[in-house]
Amino acid sequence: MDPARAFVNSVNRVIVKVGTAVVTRSDGRLALGRLGALCEQLKELNLQGYEVILVTSGAVGLGRQRLRYRRLANSSFSDLQKPQGDLDGKACAAVGQSSLMALYDTMFSQLDVTSSQLLVNDGFFKDAGFRKQLSETVSALLESRVIPIFNENDAVSTRKAPYEHCLQDSSGIFWDNDSLAGLLALELKADLLVLLSDVEGLYSGPPNDPSSKLIHTYIKEKHQSEITFGDKSRLGRGGMTAKVNAAVCAAHAGIPVIITSGYATDNIIRVLQGEKIGTVFHKDAHLWKNLKEESAHEMAVAARNSSRRLQALKSEERRKILLAVADALEKNQNMIRLENEADVADAVAAGYDKSLISRLTLTPEKISSLAKSVRVLADMEEPVGQILKRTELADELVLEKISSPLGVLLIIFESRPDALVQIAALAIRSGNGLLLKGGKEARRSNAALHKVITSAIPDTVSGKLIGLVTSRDEIPDLLKLDDVIDLVVPRGSNKLVSQIKASTKIPVLGHADGICHIYVDKAANIDMAKQIVKDAKTDYPAACNAMETLLVHKDLSCTGGLNELILELQREGVQLYGGPKASSMLNIAEASSLHHEYSSLACTIEVVEDVFAAIDHINKHGSAHTECIITEDSEVAETFLSQVDSAAVFHNASTRFCDGARFGLGAEVGISTSRIHARGPVGVEGLLTNKWILRGSGQVVDGDRGINYTHKEKALKA
Amino acid sequence: MDPARAFVNSVNRVIVKVGTAVVTRSDGRLALGRLGALCEQLKELNLQGYEVILVTSGAVGLGRQRLRYRRLANSSFSDLQKPQGDLDGKACAAVGQSSLMALYDTMFSQLDVTSSQLLVNDGFFKDAGFRKQLSETVSALLESRVIPIFNENDAVSTRKAPYEHCLQDSSGIFWDNDSLAGLLALELKADLLVLLSDVEGLYSGPPNDPSSKLIHTYIKEKHQSEITFGDKSRLGRGGMTAKVNAAVCAAHAGIPVIITSGYATDNIIRVLQGEKIGTVFHKDAHLWKNLKEESAHEMAVAARNSSRRLQALKSEERRKILLAVADALEKNQNMIRLENEADVADAVAAGYDKSLISRLTLTPEKISSLAKSVRVLADMEEPVGQILKRTELADELVLEKISSPLGVLLIIFESRPDALVQIAALAIRSGNGLLLKGGKEARRSNAALHKVITSAIPDTVSGKLIGLVTSRDEIPDLLKLDDVIDLVVPRGSNKLVSQIKASTKIPVLGHADGICHIYVDKAANIDMAKQIVKDAKTDYPAACNAMETLLVHKDLSCTGGLNELILELQREGVQLYGGPKASSMLNIAEASSLHHEYSSLACTIEVVEDVFAAIDHINKHGSAHTECIITEDSEVAETFLSQVDSAAVFHNASTRFCDGARFGLGAEVGISTSRIHARGPVGVEGLLTNKWILRGSGQVVDGDRGINYTHKEKALKA
Repeated sequence: MDPARAFVNSVNRVIVKVGTAVVTRSDGRLALGRLGALCEQLKELNLQGYEVILVTSGAVGLGRQRLRYRRLANSSFSDLQKPQGDLDGKACAAVGQSSLMALYDTMFSQLDVTSSQLLVNDGFFKDAGFRKQLSETVSALLESRVIPIFNENDAVSTRKAPYEHCLQDSSGIFWDNDSLAGLLALELKADLLVLLSDVEGLYSGPPNDPSSKLIHTYIKEKHQSEITFGDKSRLGRGGMTAKVNAAVCAAHAGIPVIITSGYATDNIIRVLQGEKIGTVFHKDAHLWKNLKEESAHEMAVAARNSSRRLQALKSEERRKILLAVADALEKNQNMIRLENEADVADAVAAGYDKSLISRLTLTPEKISSLAKSVRVLADMEEPVGQILKRTELADELVLEKISSPLGVLLIIFESRPDALVQIAALAIRSGNGLLLKGGKEARRSNAALHKVITSAIPDTVSGKLIGLVTSRDEIPDLLKLDDVIDLVVPRGSNKLVSQIKASTKIPVLGHADGICHIYVDKAANIDMAKQIVKDAKTDYPAACNAMETLLVHKDLSCTGGLNELILELQREGVQLYGGPKASSMLNIAEASSLHHEYSSLACTIEVVEDVFAAIDHINKHGSAHTECIITEDSEVAETFLSQVDSAAVFHNASTRFCDGARFGLGAEVGISTSRIHARGPVGVEGLLTNKWILRGSGQVVDGDRGINYTHKEKALKA
Repeated sequence: MDPARAFVNSVNRVIVKVGTAVVTRSDGRLALGRLGALCEQLKELNLQGYEVILVTSGAVGLGRQRLRYRRLANSSFSDLQKPQGDLDGKACAAVGQSSLMALYDTMFSQLDVTSSQLLVNDGFFKDAGFRKQLSETVSALLESRVIPIFNENDAVSTRKAPYEHCLQDSSGIFWDNDSLAGLLALELKADLLVLLSDVEGLYSGPPNDPSSKLIHTYIKEKHQSEITFGDKSRLGRGGMTAKVNAAVCAAHAGIPVIITSGYATDNIIRVLQGEKIGTVFHKDAHLWKNLKEESAHEMAVAARNSSRRLQALKSEERRKILLAVADALEKNQNMIRLENEADVADAVAAGYDKSLISRLTLTPEKISSLAKSVRVLADMEEPVGQILKRTELADELVLEKISSPLGVLLIIFESRPDALVQIAALAIRSGNGLLLKGGKEARRSNAALHKVITSAIPDTVSGKLIGLVTSRDEIPDLLKLDDVIDLVVPRGSNKLVSQIKASTKIPVLGHADGICHIYVDKAANIDMAKQIVKDAKTDYPAACNAMETLLVHKDLSCTGGLNELILELQREGVQLYGGPKASSMLNIAEASSLHHEYSSLACTIEVVEDVFAAIDHINKHGSAHTECIITEDSEVAETFLSQVDSAAVFHNASTRFCDGARFGLGAEVGISTSRIHARGPVGVEGLLTNKWILRGSGQVVDGDRGINYTHKEKALKA
């Protein structure tokens, strides 16, 4: 549930207002599908015990359709030759109203719901007696679970034009169904008003302009001046301006309002489940401190702007920032530990397991080791602006390809708060902006570390270089920002990574599965194979580089090698599942899938014909993470190394070596199974891109006649 | 329009069958929203002049709901204590049928459509007299634009169980509404039968299994044995098996059938527009030669498998393939030119402009130059398997990072057929599989070149390494294959690139916009500035590296430099639009947006405060393609070069130099404005990734206790 929508939990009485643009299609015909879905939803709410009131528009348009048809049916041929006058609006309202009510009655009856009609005129509300009576009638209806359906009694209304008043004005009048709905919300003491529109909610600009953003929570002080309204809806009197006016007034008077699309078939249900759809108006919205909905974009833009200032610094200045971060960590050790202890105490109380608590705990040693690693990073060779290639294109025209920062990174990591420090330091070193989302167990530790690190960043760059995302609800918003975030690195469960990959257009660096294979060849040293297989499976079974499938050459089933491997694994408590061949040969349970990551003391075992069958098996069923061959036959080994199509391929070494630190890359951003950008364990270089710099002296292309290309590669150092 | 759906163009009479799973929700309640949308669509078809017949299920379920409610309303408190017996199915049918028809009548009436009820029993169809009468009645109804609504007369049917017959069986009976719909399609000589289901169409396996693929066109010979059906729909008698049986029989008898989802609000309309949704059954489907719908995936998988065999070859063998390609091009010159001449003749007849025709034409010179360039590529240094980094992790444990092919590329290019040769040669050189989609103007030339090239690829690799996609309709299918295609390179209009970026999860290499800026500093040599600005705008205005915005330092408005630049551009016929400042200062029309690519002899001009304002302007409004500063002040130049955040940044040289050939990269894959993987002009390296190879002698990690890390960088050559 979105925190800004938590109030829906205490909603009992809800008014739903459906406008002409929802009831009617753009060609004027009734939108029966949308109306049907509306009735289904109101039935559902009714069933769930909500008190549901409907305010409906659409009668005039519907009446106009019917009257037009009636006129046609009544016309003689000569009548049709004459110019057709406009239909009377009041007449249309009278015809349409009964037609619309008959339709609602039929639809609701089909759903075993009784509905009722209440037609009101604006003058009525000035009369206190009327208001009391109305309130009593509605309560009586709701008590019998009948749905009251309100509309303005247009057919007999004498009102000419909208009034220039606001509805909390004492005169108690309305000028369209949006304000009627707002007025009823007050009169009938509703807990929520839902205004159904033809767009998703209130946008910062015209909804069809791609640069307009949906405003999740309207804050008058902030948005009133910012918003540019587009055209009014083509049909009906309302439009977005009317909705916002009604919503602002109702919210001010204490009734929360949500504007959402009436085109979707389940938006009302979703609104009442607290889902983050549409735009909320709430009188306390400006006080909501943790309200970050609208700021995801601002946060990312601020990080990008700060990163540009960081890039403009000299290498030595970036180094000094890192040294200041290291000092600040040590200086604020007590504060950090205090916050961390609170996290740890909560985790212990919540009964988390020991390994999580040990990863969560920041000991003084861990903090000084973190400070030390930041200093090491400070002193590493400058990664940004490295010349990767230098070419003389022509006389006095020199091209350089240089390394440059990616831009803004979004890193989503789990419980270890030290990861925050490492990633932040990597970002500063590589000139990138950063948005960080840590696990909630380390909430206070992360906040403390973030504060310490950003306070060490000079104002010329701004602490906004590193944004701390505090709520999981902000992630979907962030994942939409493919215009300002350049790379997402999720470090967590398969499920997290898969979900993120499925829900963003931003490139994702990481891996969903780590289904690592070891192939034991017929020419393997069996003792070595036992050691490596044992290490690969049991050293850290939950790691992504742990072995999940063991492939064994068929000859080893005769020589006893296969048995030795099985015994070794069983001795370590590893549960074995067989591939089709192995399960029948060894009489063990068959693996549910050959593409399965156990992440525990279990693995799949299969017998294969030869190295080519092993390669095929891996390319077909693997996840392209890390694979290993164990053999003394170097020719077979080279075949395996060249033909297995994975990020890392090993000969006679445990798959557990696939790791940034073990590979000597220093801090690891993650392990990528993608083939684009970076593959395998990724260090700083995964946070860099390149840029082409061309220095000339006035050269022009002029159809390639203007210049004599030399294309000479030059030494990298000038 | 999808070619396999072209037959919908001649459809006049269409039968739509809506099943219980569409009419009713999973909780048994009426799905009013879906029914409303169904009526809206049938009204629309009716209006468009189609003869529309509806076959509806759902009456029994609806009756059961109503009877249950009725029983409750009739019950005393003591009745309710007793166990409730099952409701009689026939009684439910009787209640539900009138209720459902009343609902259809109301809904259709609201849309000014008259509907009618036709209840039939299976025995009836054995009677020729009945069949004749039915056909006449329906024709009479349709002539009056009345929609006949069919259902089985369940309430008085004595049938007990489904028959084991097929409907083209002479007995003429049906056993559920799917077969009734099929039977009616034959009897009433419908042109199309649409079966609405609760899933998108027929899948190759259970629809909720992610590995199941939607079958676009059912081919009995191919699919009958392949398909595994999931559970039947929970409601109603039909389910997918019944639909497929009915569809196969109807199609066999000459009535095309489309199974599609009844959950969407517009699927029937889309089906009749020939959109590629749902599953088509057509008696001639097995004869459709160009039917590639299902083969997009197969084509990509074949390319990947072939690429793995290509990678397994020795460098020298890959070189020989390229030499064979070059020879084949020369040897088949006449055939290629013949096909090309046919394309050219068509293009001339179609009135295409000269520049397109010149790009389309393959002269003997072009062909030999192509052959030559393939030979150059053959002799270039092997790009695959290059050692990029070599580290000794520990004693006898050596890590190598080597270059390796990306996998499978999808290249979408425009009219130049020579691009096909260049790209194919690049793919072979870099060990990649390739899917090519060329422009339709070069259809025959591309087919000829593709045939020549693939026939030069040895069978050990297979010509399937390079797939030629012949229809634009296949692109959406290909773009879904993020599991087998690794990179998409669109080479065409902004619109094409944007559409592709928006519709695929596969990484896209390229650029949508090329909004290149030139900033003329106050310390510029104005003569040089005039030359460069003129070249950047006029050398090839439609190129992505042409200047679109000219930023001028404010001081130049006093010194006359600004005027000289304007005069120079106007002399070349360039239309100028101003930014906010320039438009008022120079009294010219204001640019509609500062982020605009003219691609013609027009550009935006704006006056800026200084280099920092220019940098801000570019970072804010640009497309991060290519920007240039013209100045004699080297400090200002370096500020610009380091702070402008674009793929290419130039000093005193035309933006037109941003190009793979001019940069000396050889063949160019494209220019990327993405920050991931490759940026700026991309040559072969954009088609490569890397792979980590670790060679050990039995090392294990064992909690990092087992090994003494050295992490020594070693020379790249062993």
